Amino acid sequence: MSRAAYRQFSKITTRWFDNDIYGHMNNALHYQLFDTAVNGYLIKTGVLDLHSGKTVFLVVETGCQYFSELAFPDVITAGFCVTKLGRSSVRYEVSLFRNDADIAAAKGHFVHVNVDRETRRPVLIGQSARDILSELVVEGTAS
Amino acid sequence: MSRAAYRQFSKITTRWFDNDIYGHMNNALHYQLFDTAVNGYLIKTGVLDLHSGKTVFLVVETGCQYFSELAFPDVITAGFCVTKLGRSSVRYEVSLFRNDADIAAAKGHFVHVNVDRETRRPVLIGQSARDILSELVVEGTAS
Amino acid sequence: MSRAAYRQFSKITTRWFDNDIYGHMNNALHYQLFDTAVNGYLIKTGVLDLHSGKTVFLVVETGCQYFSELAFPDVITAGFCVTKLGRSSVRYEVSLFRNDADIAAAKGHFVHVNVDRETRRPVLIGQSARDILSELVVEGTAS
Amino acid sequence: MSRAAYRQFSKITTRWFDNDIYGHMNNALHYQLFDTAVNGYLIKTGVLDLHSGKTVFLVVETGCQYFSELAFPDVITAGFCVTKLGRSSVRYEVSLFRNDADIAAAKGHFVHVNVDRETRRPVLIGQSARDILSELVVEGTAS
Repeated sequence: MSRAAYRQFSKITTRWFDNDIYGHMNNALHYQLFDTAVNGYLIKTGVLDLHSGKTVFLVVETGCQYFSELAFPDVITAGFCVTKLGRSSVRYEVSLFRNDADIAAAKGHFVHVNVDRETRRPVLIGQSARDILSELVVEGTAS
Repeated sequence: MSRAAYRQFSKITTRWFDNDIYGHMNNALHYQLFDTAVNGYLIKTGVLDLHSGKTVFLVVETGCQYFSELAFPDVITAGFCVTKLGRSSVRYEVSLFRNDADIAAAKGHFVHVNVDRETRRPVLIGQSARDILSELVVEGTAS
Repeated sequence: MSRAAYRQFSKITTRWFDNDIYGHMNNALHYQLFDTAVNGYLIKTGVLDLHSGKTVFLVVETGCQYFSELAFPDVITAGFCVTKLGRSSVRYEVSLFRNDADIAAAKGHFVHVNVDRETRRPVLIGQSARDILSELVVEGTAS
Repeated sequence: MSRAAYRQFSKITTRWFDNDIYGHMNNALHYQLFDTAVNGYLIKTGVLDLHSGKTVFLVVETGCQYFSELAFPDVITAGFCVTKLGRSSVRYEVSLFRNDADIAAAKGHFVHVNVDRETRRPVLIGQSARDILSELVVEGTAS
């Protein structure tokens, strides 16, 4: 739940309409931030190529626990790591940190499956992608 | 995973921008539909009064599994039930059915905590709300 | 501003998270409903084919006036018509009606340009699409 | 259309789900960024107090022209100014700049009306707010 538990970080600015009628970030928004942090990293490192890649990652499972409120105009840091690197799937854990806080306001996970862009059938993760994803793996995480 | 497993249903029209770059409903949207179905029911039955109620329900945990794709312009039916009715919290299970399908495209859950609107501290669920929520309880669901 | 001014209608259910911190539909959401109504019609009539069409419609201009509030759990009817059918562009007018109201809560417009899906350069609208769009044209609308 | 035309700037990170099925920022999103930039400034300068203010600003008109595409993972700078400061209303102009570009990818405007939070009736803009808003006024803008 502390920043030290994560391998990579992404800074995300909040938006006016992140706040729902209760004046805080709506629970569904957290998942948009998980996608943003991880897919942004995959694009930057070349693991995901939206224009000419033959495979894409589809989400098959997600979950989140909410410990404290986030709200516009907070700046959020998403810390993330890989907790399971399978043959064609990857399980990510992502925590959201409010402004300078070191304790997460929310902690989630999601599972990506690498699929053929056309057939949407699972495909082995290639070696170069595997090398990059391996650097995100945190040992001893069994959540 | 079939409609018969649920107590109440809500019909939700999809939108153009539910589809992400992969041409299907983005995984975060499912959670907006869970909120819509359940909170819509709570408003209709008077359990949730957004304008003068002294308590509101905040989300502390969510999760979802995605079995098949949903996409605009599908019409979605959200079926929901209560799988745990606690003293101040409620655990809902919600499945999303595509058009006329009887097997869910996605199945999720979330946990509401009843809190004081100002202090945001947990508060016992009142008897009239409990009576209405009781009708949603499905026995033998231990997920 | 009355329903009689429009050629086609689309019923759209609202969602919990349409409401912003002010408890009403956020102004940006109206544009998602415009897209939903018009693109839904274009898909249904075959003018827009998301999977195998060689052209798509991109938005180059939008605008909206807000007369009264919309809010979850309202059901909204979007009425729309074509106010200008050009060689490669179409100007739509869309009004949003709250529940059974006959007077619009908001009135907007947007301009679509028909473009090649790959090059994104303007392309003439084909005759079959033009025939369908012609049925939406309202005479004497010079807004 | 160049950054020099604006008085204040706000940096906004894009998100995975800003991209629609066409792989670029959906046209409705631009309005969320306009709100974010301007309301963020109003909160920072004390003109808007979401928790204890007696007045809020509601949007009565919006519009946007789209010149070129924005897309995740771009970083966007929103430049904004006031083009009309009325007794109870303010007209803002906002342009969105992609990464380091000096020419706007999109240019919009919106009109805020200052209203009583409860009655939602127009109220004169107070002197301290007027002073702050005056610093954003650009002369000779008659768009």
